[in-house]
Amino acid sequence: MVFSEGSMKQMVTKVAINGFGTIGKRVADAVDAQDDMEIVGVTKTSPSFGCELVVRKGYPLYCTFDDNEKIGAFADSGYECKGGLSSLLSICDVIIDCSPGKVGAENLAKYKLAGVKSIFQGGEKHTLTDISYTSSANHSENMDVDSTRVVSCNTTGLSRTLVPISEFVKEKGKISVNSVMIRRAADPGDSSKGPINAIKPVLKVPSHHGTDLMTVKPEIEITSLAVAVPTTIMHVHAITVTLPSGHGLSAEKVLELWDNTPRVILMNGAKTKITSTAEVMELARDIGRKWGDLHEIFVWEDGVSLLDDTLYYFQAIHQESDVIPENVDAIRAIMNIEKDWKASVDKTDKAISAYNGI
Amino acid sequence: MVFSEGSMKQMVTKVAINGFGTIGKRVADAVDAQDDMEIVGVTKTSPSFGCELVVRKGYPLYCTFDDNEKIGAFADSGYECKGGLSSLLSICDVIIDCSPGKVGAENLAKYKLAGVKSIFQGGEKHTLTDISYTSSANHSENMDVDSTRVVSCNTTGLSRTLVPISEFVKEKGKISVNSVMIRRAADPGDSSKGPINAIKPVLKVPSHHGTDLMTVKPEIEITSLAVAVPTTIMHVHAITVTLPSGHGLSAEKVLELWDNTPRVILMNGAKTKITSTAEVMELARDIGRKWGDLHEIFVWEDGVSLLDDTLYYFQAIHQESDVIPENVDAIRAIMNIEKDWKASVDKTDKAISAYNGI
Amino acid sequence: MVFSEGSMKQMVTKVAINGFGTIGKRVADAVDAQDDMEIVGVTKTSPSFGCELVVRKGYPLYCTFDDNEKIGAFADSGYECKGGLSSLLSICDVIIDCSPGKVGAENLAKYKLAGVKSIFQGGEKHTLTDISYTSSANHSENMDVDSTRVVSCNTTGLSRTLVPISEFVKEKGKISVNSVMIRRAADPGDSSKGPINAIKPVLKVPSHHGTDLMTVKPEIEITSLAVAVPTTIMHVHAITVTLPSGHGLSAEKVLELWDNTPRVILMNGAKTKITSTAEVMELARDIGRKWGDLHEIFVWEDGVSLLDDTLYYFQAIHQESDVIPENVDAIRAIMNIEKDWKASVDKTDKAISAYNGI
Amino acid sequence: MVFSEGSMKQMVTKVAINGFGTIGKRVADAVDAQDDMEIVGVTKTSPSFGCELVVRKGYPLYCTFDDNEKIGAFADSGYECKGGLSSLLSICDVIIDCSPGKVGAENLAKYKLAGVKSIFQGGEKHTLTDISYTSSANHSENMDVDSTRVVSCNTTGLSRTLVPISEFVKEKGKISVNSVMIRRAADPGDSSKGPINAIKPVLKVPSHHGTDLMTVKPEIEITSLAVAVPTTIMHVHAITVTLPSGHGLSAEKVLELWDNTPRVILMNGAKTKITSTAEVMELARDIGRKWGDLHEIFVWEDGVSLLDDTLYYFQAIHQESDVIPENVDAIRAIMNIEKDWKASVDKTDKAISAYNGI
Repeated sequence: MVFSEGSMKQMVTKVAINGFGTIGKRVADAVDAQDDMEIVGVTKTSPSFGCELVVRKGYPLYCTFDDNEKIGAFADSGYECKGGLSSLLSICDVIIDCSPGKVGAENLAKYKLAGVKSIFQGGEKHTLTDISYTSSANHSENMDVDSTRVVSCNTTGLSRTLVPISEFVKEKGKISVNSVMIRRAADPGDSSKGPINAIKPVLKVPSHHGTDLMTVKPEIEITSLAVAVPTTIMHVHAITVTLPSGHGLSAEKVLELWDNTPRVILMNGAKTKITSTAEVMELARDIGRKWGDLHEIFVWEDGVSLLDDTLYYFQAIHQESDVIPENVDAIRAIMNIEKDWKASVDKTDKAISAYNGI
Repeated sequence: MVFSEGSMKQMVTKVAINGFGTIGKRVADAVDAQDDMEIVGVTKTSPSFGCELVVRKGYPLYCTFDDNEKIGAFADSGYECKGGLSSLLSICDVIIDCSPGKVGAENLAKYKLAGVKSIFQGGEKHTLTDISYTSSANHSENMDVDSTRVVSCNTTGLSRTLVPISEFVKEKGKISVNSVMIRRAADPGDSSKGPINAIKPVLKVPSHHGTDLMTVKPEIEITSLAVAVPTTIMHVHAITVTLPSGHGLSAEKVLELWDNTPRVILMNGAKTKITSTAEVMELARDIGRKWGDLHEIFVWEDGVSLLDDTLYYFQAIHQESDVIPENVDAIRAIMNIEKDWKASVDKTDKAISAYNGI
Repeated sequence: MVFSEGSMKQMVTKVAINGFGTIGKRVADAVDAQDDMEIVGVTKTSPSFGCELVVRKGYPLYCTFDDNEKIGAFADSGYECKGGLSSLLSICDVIIDCSPGKVGAENLAKYKLAGVKSIFQGGEKHTLTDISYTSSANHSENMDVDSTRVVSCNTTGLSRTLVPISEFVKEKGKISVNSVMIRRAADPGDSSKGPINAIKPVLKVPSHHGTDLMTVKPEIEITSLAVAVPTTIMHVHAITVTLPSGHGLSAEKVLELWDNTPRVILMNGAKTKITSTAEVMELARDIGRKWGDLHEIFVWEDGVSLLDDTLYYFQAIHQESDVIPENVDAIRAIMNIEKDWKASVDKTDKAISAYNGI
Repeated sequence: MVFSEGSMKQMVTKVAINGFGTIGKRVADAVDAQDDMEIVGVTKTSPSFGCELVVRKGYPLYCTFDDNEKIGAFADSGYECKGGLSSLLSICDVIIDCSPGKVGAENLAKYKLAGVKSIFQGGEKHTLTDISYTSSANHSENMDVDSTRVVSCNTTGLSRTLVPISEFVKEKGKISVNSVMIRRAADPGDSSKGPINAIKPVLKVPSHHGTDLMTVKPEIEITSLAVAVPTTIMHVHAITVTLPSGHGLSAEKVLELWDNTPRVILMNGAKTKITSTAEVMELARDIGRKWGDLHEIFVWEDGVSLLDDTLYYFQAIHQESDVIPENVDAIRAIMNIEKDWKASVDKTDKAISAYNGI
């Protein structure tokens, strides 16, 4: 990250990351790769093994708590801890809350008290911030707000492919969506959760995923069902869209729309022999993505079918990474840096590609 | 199986089984458990380990082919082979074709030539027999036909729960169904097929499963999507039904309909802690079912939701066994034995329960 | 279970089962199938779904606790509960403790106070009873003791195949065994435990399994290592045995020894196409075993190799069932019913086969 | 890859890669990262999707065959193909054969005819080249040979941890090793192979892995057994080493030896919560390794135990990558570039770390 000293310097947004797990560590790197923002600190709850990674990356390390004993524990384990959350809040412009769910309300109060803008993740409810975010759906509505919420990996995935369709047909009417989410039951680094050999339906019906899309794009009518399955690498969505009559779309036209949509990858399963999420993840590894991540939504071209007014398709969602660039864009929205969502996405993705060495 | 000699004897239908794999071995036992039919022979292609099971059961063993060398091979391995397929056809009233797919047309020609009625499985196409079968949808239409096809495990499952709903609302209009099939990728005894850690969408969209239901119940409009997942024990269907307006149904009423439907099990996942297909299969083992089979369709009571005109539910399908009792009922239809489908189902299931020792 | 009144009656041992989970439900059925013992009651902690099975089997139902409120809860849920553990202890001759681990000491005190003999499972430590049990290793030493412990599924499996070898060569010296246990990570009816896609070594080295064998056969020197893997159906042991010089064994002779050993199945993987635990379990289903159980140890004939003084082999262990018949035999030992272990095994297995309908 | 023009330039070894699959693509990148070698071409059999990756990397693309039609097919699909294998052989100093197994003999003949040195992979037999290679065992013996074979991932892993122990105790005697390999059944990008829920023993006993170690370190006595399990990410070895008496080792001393051994990572499972291969792979992703690879052998510190003369330990092997740096070192051996194996390893690993951005 090189920039000329002087006038440019004050334009760099100071970003803090609260929590350095699956999402936090990725958001930190994605922010670090941008030239208009910098990481001023990340938090850990205790001097666990994850601190090694923080040190290796060169990020200033803070404690999640303001408790002197807990802060002191880091030094005892040989890690330099710069202070507690309050200290971090005193030097940042915006904080990305990547802490595990359920502590959002408590954290938001602290952020507000410190006068720091904040971004939460999809594990928190919409009502926490009363506004949610995806790059493609409502970037401009998020300009200059104090606090927002980047929706979950599943909702982000739905937003990517459904928003362009909804917008294309909007003069003819609304789209109505039925989505079945086939979810990976555990993340790849988690060896405790099962099932090993079973399919587990989410008995809350409809599932929350559909409704959540309406927090960023209220004009899409959507319901969803979810099942968990014994895989660790990606979710798959089986989606059925009822289009308004006179929609003017064909399967080809839909593919063209998505081809022009950022962060959507279209591939032909038969031609590329990418027949499952295993080969999709191998693609991500082959193109050199850090952690083998794929922040784009993967759509099988030959699984897209449009019959009369019904569109069918499958998409694969990399649960660990699709929301990462959205967090970067969300910073640009709430910090009032860039109003044009496509410009932000373009800038974000170019920088991420650079740090991925492609 | 005890019956008095004499007048009763000619009422016993002589059944042959062509193929003794996953389906064949189960159909043989289910037929054997009935008092109005008997197994006169089963076929194997060669003297493999599976012959042990045939011998153990006491079924007469025949060779799938009429080739003397192949027939002779059985004796060489110590198994008594009664002859080739022609010999078997000469002594049976009806043959259940449980051979692997793609040889249906060839087999049907042989059965016709021998003047033997026949029943095929869902691996064959509807066009082979021009009529298909499920107990609940179209038993009476199958009375006395020469040849029919019992639909696949998935279609059978859809028929069980959708037909009663379709019939309940038929005066108000048709139901329109969207079903996503989450399929086990291999059977439990198969150690060669994968994937081990991936979700594989079936890129033929919509999948064939929906359309197939219309072969037995044309008035149900249905489309389907399918994905294969790394489990061996059951399929799960995530189903969305659009009901005609004025349908008169509630979630409770739907549960009541299914409670009165043969071969549907309703359980509350939260109360019984049966939260996935793992616990469903454990239930089948607990109640002492042979092979741990569950020929009923399992519906999670607390996963049933009816909002306005849309019904959502999940059902689990035991791919190895749900079609087994339907084959028995199909025999009664095409042999003109019993016109009332519920009477046949009742008789079939009582006998199966008996042989299962419950 | 029919027997004449009178002199015979006092010979029937009254057996209680404390705990009705994976092991308890199987032991109950195995005992129930014997003509010299009967189930006088089984316990459940609360009126959960499992009570359905107790009722269905016709076993008298008791509460694990003597707490009146807990006992009353059963009636509230519609189950007839005969009383607490004390009541059950007052009417039985022997109790099989199938409660989850860690409560053994507390339970043993209760059993002793009631003057009831008891049998624990391998989840408890040897020091609880100071004597342990497998049918083939030390049946006679367990005659008439007050309390014993049937060792774990893994130790039972090791005992079956190693004891005959140890005894064959004992005049030449001891055998020294290295065993690596590749363990299923969760039982088939458990959908919560992982891992989904990982191998997890048991970092306590050597693992406890080896040492445990010495509690029943001290003259076998054995160490073991264990790893957990993402499968639910069986454990596999990879075993290396160092034989004393002049052992007089060949691979053929070893196979012959095992062929003459009860509860060991030998099959050729290449010929039978039983190449993995998937096909082994399918075999168990095919031969009609209840729950699809296989209480025998399965050894791949073509995986047995003897080079100089080293014997190598693989065996598959059905973790849910191999100890079941051992519990029945253990009853005969501690109740002083049958001194000859092979006579007991023969009687047990004949009765189990009968109830399995083979 | 920057170096000064002139005298240095002729020192750069021209490397060709025959085959661009799991191993080939990684070897290409590892070679490309070194300053004393360069990739002059890689081969593909046909213009499949993998060509995209070749183009993206900027490697000259050749056809595996010399057939003009096959060469032409690349242009038809829009890929520039420089020619057939013969053309590639005419411009390289050494070729790394990463083609699928069984064509080694045929390929070796072509390489010899062209006067090009060659390196094969562990899928080929030792007898093909009559010399095999691992960096730590026999680098110097491979100096200037015409053709060698880098042993398999498993054998490489055994060599890493066993050679230092063998050398430490050599004056006291030989070590004798028993290794059980718990193998991932398919690579992560492979969605076709199973088993999904089974353990599959390798019935060739002992397995080939042990013997193979003796091709590079004949003084180690070793036997091995192998099982395949339903995971895709790593193998695990459960190893038991019998040390000569008077060995002078303790568990601490063994850990110290390995700590000083290149390409071995030691971590404490309890402290780091790295309890399975899932967390090991997550570590590799966290430290930014390309493809999430871990070319080091991972040993659990707290799983190492030394009792009397027996050492026990577990190690995890990343099957896709541990042999990659060994191929680079092997080039330096057979091209007579660097005689000191540790110097080569150091140079290789520094360059790989650079391209991994750590």
